[in-house]
Amino acid sequence: MAIRNSMANLLIGIDVGGTNIKIGCFDTRLKLLKKTSITTDANTGPQAVVKKMLTAIDDLVRESSFTLSDISAAGIGTPGPADYKAGIIINSTNMPAFKNVPIRQMLSGGLHCPVVFDNDANVACFGEFVAGAGKGVTDMVFFTLGTGIGAGIVSEGKLLRGISGNAAELGHTIIYPDGRLCNCGQKGCVEAYASASNTAKRATEAVEAGEKSSLKKVLDKNGQITSKDVYDHLKTGDKLAKKITDETAKALAILCINTLHATEPQRIVFAGGMIAAGDILLNRIKDYFNQQIWKLKKETIEICFATLGEDAGIIGAAALAKNQ
Amino acid sequence: MAIRNSMANLLIGIDVGGTNIKIGCFDTRLKLLKKTSITTDANTGPQAVVKKMLTAIDDLVRESSFTLSDISAAGIGTPGPADYKAGIIINSTNMPAFKNVPIRQMLSGGLHCPVVFDNDANVACFGEFVAGAGKGVTDMVFFTLGTGIGAGIVSEGKLLRGISGNAAELGHTIIYPDGRLCNCGQKGCVEAYASASNTAKRATEAVEAGEKSSLKKVLDKNGQITSKDVYDHLKTGDKLAKKITDETAKALAILCINTLHATEPQRIVFAGGMIAAGDILLNRIKDYFNQQIWKLKKETIEICFATLGEDAGIIGAAALAKNQ
Repeated sequence: MAIRNSMANLLIGIDVGGTNIKIGCFDTRLKLLKKTSITTDANTGPQAVVKKMLTAIDDLVRESSFTLSDISAAGIGTPGPADYKAGIIINSTNMPAFKNVPIRQMLSGGLHCPVVFDNDANVACFGEFVAGAGKGVTDMVFFTLGTGIGAGIVSEGKLLRGISGNAAELGHTIIYPDGRLCNCGQKGCVEAYASASNTAKRATEAVEAGEKSSLKKVLDKNGQITSKDVYDHLKTGDKLAKKITDETAKALAILCINTLHATEPQRIVFAGGMIAAGDILLNRIKDYFNQQIWKLKKETIEICFATLGEDAGIIGAAALAKNQ
Repeated sequence: MAIRNSMANLLIGIDVGGTNIKIGCFDTRLKLLKKTSITTDANTGPQAVVKKMLTAIDDLVRESSFTLSDISAAGIGTPGPADYKAGIIINSTNMPAFKNVPIRQMLSGGLHCPVVFDNDANVACFGEFVAGAGKGVTDMVFFTLGTGIGAGIVSEGKLLRGISGNAAELGHTIIYPDGRLCNCGQKGCVEAYASASNTAKRATEAVEAGEKSSLKKVLDKNGQITSKDVYDHLKTGDKLAKKITDETAKALAILCINTLHATEPQRIVFAGGMIAAGDILLNRIKDYFNQQIWKLKKETIEICFATLGEDAGIIGAAALAKNQ
């Protein structure tokens, strides 16, 4: 049983996704005491979701032999854009029932403690920065390759937030003007090419358009191609899988170059499901980076993979709560 | 005659260009007391150039009825990239005789005061931020359209510097992969399309390739087309001038969008010779911005022109010296 102080100064980290909400309970040194995951069920509306969150937090601290009054601060990350400065989810693509929801106030009212509210990718970025792949640097940029491409920027040890907390939406960097339509409404975003979903989608489109590939059997059998399929077939020598991977790696390399010229980090960290592809992807990104980068000065930036996996978000949210 | 204190706390701002070095002498409230301009003559080498600079500063403070000992701090901006953190010009494209020059130390040794060393565009950016088009905001991005495209980023009132002071090289954002070759060695940089020089160059190339345009007469007569010629002929209805301007405006609009998604400033400020084109250019940039920007949230960013003209650099350098 944990040793009880009169006030334990627990930190709560919450990572809201379209499907699940992860919650972690940490001590003041950011040691994870206990974590849980609940379904988001965003369609039940903000009141119900927040209530469920509060119940889950209550259970979590009780299971660690504490009570809600032992919580000193909480952090929450949600998909952007939102008015993070004002603490309001304005209009979430993943959670259409959430419109003008004062999420920070609702949570801090329920928990009776200060709450930090930030973009889900910023929160995961900060987690990797304090406890994962960002160790030992002061300036890093983070990309998470999933349905979309989330990003975070740490400059001189602090998250770069911008005027309403929507800085670092780097997945929406336009690199192919008038190119593929992105979910955001822009054309030619990196995300429209190189997210896990769009890597898979480009492969599907190519197979459907008649390009020869061992991926055709996957499409016929499963009705879809995933980014994992692309990398699996790359490893067995499929030419289309190589072409699709090259396009993804090139788009990500150009994103790295543009990012380097924007905030000049020491390290760029990739996270998300797609990094399971491993070195075969990472090395292609580095190859394109070296091929496309300027010649004015030698760059020593490190490009690597994240190390915390799915816990990055809850750790980062708790770390932001601690730092506020 | 100026009122003399025992120590006047003067600030010196120095703006080094390939052709001229501008120097300003400011009081502690950043009021310009006197300014001067000397030729750079970079080929005479760093020792000679620094000596000439020191003599010019000595003259400048004397003419304001002060002496070198009245200087409390100085700031200097030079074209990048350099190791701004270490205070060293490593390898300057405009000044090939300057290799591994410890410019900050040389100046602070000569002036017996602390010296701040930064990128020329950062310095001009900071000048506009404190005394020009950036008034009233905390987060701004600055672009100067000349031979190249210089840039500066202010985040929460401070210049974003990156790990060796080479952040905000946003002119080298790649927006057309495998596109036009940039002086930096990359392909498809915004600079390769939308700097003043490259706007003029694209017009020249088009005329030489046989495109019909009233600019042909200019090329035949002057042996070259300038960006000013392009905007002059745009105003008189030349179709090629319109096409060239549209391409420039579109590249700059995409740069604005990518910048918004990187650091989310309140205001983007354009400076440099090319803004003489006036509203005809600014409005095209805004049109393309509104056409190409995402639909996820309404953006209220302001895009405008700089107001300080050529003094931005010396004001910014002095302001950085004051703030250090």
